[in-house]
Amino acid sequence: MKVTSKSLKKLLRDIFQKFGLSKVHSNICANAIINAELVGAPSHGLSRLKMYCERIKKKVINPKPKIKIKKISQSISFIDANNSIGFVAADIGIKQAIKNARKTGIGLVGVKNSGHYGLSGYYAEQATKKNLIVICFTNAPPAIAPHGAKKKLFGTNPICFGAPTYSNTPFILDTSVSEINRGKIRVAAQMGKKIPKGVALDKFGKPTTNAKKALAGVQLPISGFRGSGLAWMVDILSGVFTGGNHGGKVKDPFEDFSGPQNIGHLFLVVKPNLFVGDFNKRIKENIKRIKKLPKLNGVKEILYPGQSKFKRYKKNIKRKILIPKNILKDLNILN
Amino acid sequence: MKVTSKSLKKLLRDIFQKFGLSKVHSNICANAIINAELVGAPSHGLSRLKMYCERIKKKVINPKPKIKIKKISQSISFIDANNSIGFVAADIGIKQAIKNARKTGIGLVGVKNSGHYGLSGYYAEQATKKNLIVICFTNAPPAIAPHGAKKKLFGTNPICFGAPTYSNTPFILDTSVSEINRGKIRVAAQMGKKIPKGVALDKFGKPTTNAKKALAGVQLPISGFRGSGLAWMVDILSGVFTGGNHGGKVKDPFEDFSGPQNIGHLFLVVKPNLFVGDFNKRIKENIKRIKKLPKLNGVKEILYPGQSKFKRYKKNIKRKILIPKNILKDLNILN
Repeated sequence: MKVTSKSLKKLLRDIFQKFGLSKVHSNICANAIINAELVGAPSHGLSRLKMYCERIKKKVINPKPKIKIKKISQSISFIDANNSIGFVAADIGIKQAIKNARKTGIGLVGVKNSGHYGLSGYYAEQATKKNLIVICFTNAPPAIAPHGAKKKLFGTNPICFGAPTYSNTPFILDTSVSEINRGKIRVAAQMGKKIPKGVALDKFGKPTTNAKKALAGVQLPISGFRGSGLAWMVDILSGVFTGGNHGGKVKDPFEDFSGPQNIGHLFLVVKPNLFVGDFNKRIKENIKRIKKLPKLNGVKEILYPGQSKFKRYKKNIKRKILIPKNILKDLNILN
Repeated sequence: MKVTSKSLKKLLRDIFQKFGLSKVHSNICANAIINAELVGAPSHGLSRLKMYCERIKKKVINPKPKIKIKKISQSISFIDANNSIGFVAADIGIKQAIKNARKTGIGLVGVKNSGHYGLSGYYAEQATKKNLIVICFTNAPPAIAPHGAKKKLFGTNPICFGAPTYSNTPFILDTSVSEINRGKIRVAAQMGKKIPKGVALDKFGKPTTNAKKALAGVQLPISGFRGSGLAWMVDILSGVFTGGNHGGKVKDPFEDFSGPQNIGHLFLVVKPNLFVGDFNKRIKENIKRIKKLPKLNGVKEILYPGQSKFKRYKKNIKRKILIPKNILKDLNILN
């Protein structure tokens, strides 16, 4: 079935409200999920709706959180999200970091007692839209084995960086430190599709292209010890530092309903003109130089991170959103 | 020849003073170079000495810089290093970031008009020794082709993160975003050794294990577009943002004496107890959990980033430093 994003938004809002979220919070969640669909990341969109609702029903997501924002300084804030759904906690977190950065040039916000918040890039965009530079970190349930270990422990722990480009399309790098996003493996498993070679091992430590076996096994970090080290860095910054769960204790939202996830997030936002007055010209010049390089055969244009996603968004926003059958079933049950 | 680190230090200090650096600056440079040798990173140590001296002689490193520190706020400072040797600029930069962080919880320092500063981890350690968390970025001369391009433009652009562990050995991740450090290829080329497969292409775009051909060609980023995106992020943060060179304009210090490098650095330092009172316990618990994981065959211990380096340092500090013949020749000429 295909639906307009407007009617899908209403449907999602209704579902979240039915599950006890306020109108404002339901709206935040609906927007984040629709955005994931529009940018072509269905692994972070509707495919997670049922899971969120189940977690609310089983009281491991709090639909009516009392979110506390503690002011550490003019630049630094600390948020206890009270087991809110991740979308809401992250939305409050990035908005606070933006506010602090606008006031003092730099904003740092730690968030604890949150959950999976969808795409990091979605929050980074809030900052780039206000012409600010941003870095977001969040940890995630075990997926990657630390270098030298044969059991998964780190999440796919994204590193997300955004910068304004003073054009329609911000620079948004939103990359996991695994060779593949876990969400993509999950979608492949749901669809019965294979995953690429060299991105995962089964539970016996053997390479696999079977998505279900990969989910039961471990994902490979990018470039061995380098990716493992980056995943560890993100675990420290978003978990150890903020008071969130860490060291493999973040629960898998799809499988473990024994308690809240207590994911941590860290948002850093800075003004781009702290050191130079012409950041806008400099970033344009930077991108121009790189786009002018001779291209590999078959490459039409050298794209900066975020450009492909924005192109998909622009194309999809004019169309109706396709809802796969299995998700349509979820929607009907949940509504 | 083998020498004690004490006598090597005196020799290096003498050489830098002979080339016009102050006693204090010569000392900073000597310490940084000896540290690189002791941690087992000779590519960032003595093998660069001749290059630094040549750059001073050709007036593209300023031996008597007037380094200006501009206070943007209590937390933020901006340094114009006046084409100082990178070691000195970075030493002043990290110390200022530490000072700001101790005062306000967070310190951000941008540096422009600097040069190659050796190992990022060396500066990160200054912060972890004071029980602070640190991130350092610097850009470097062209080595990596952006994703989709066939010409090198990004440097190997390291990402460096440090956290105190309240033990002898801090957590120091210091990783380039290329499959191999450029310095390692350079050392292999000097020694006539091969480099591993899959880390570089020759100038015709073909895979090569010949170090000299790799230097003339391009290095591969980790994990394709992911590593390319991370290199781009570092170029924006340390170059575009700070006023340093960027977009492929950082000169190769070994080959291009037509002007100063104008490398940019960015240092971010934060107090680990901004959000939680027991960061010390939490980081120990984090490391303990990860070290306890079942290990791959042949792995004795799961090490966190920085541990191998510190082990090498502890072993080497008790020994004399081996000086290869070609470098001995440099030292004799320079002294």
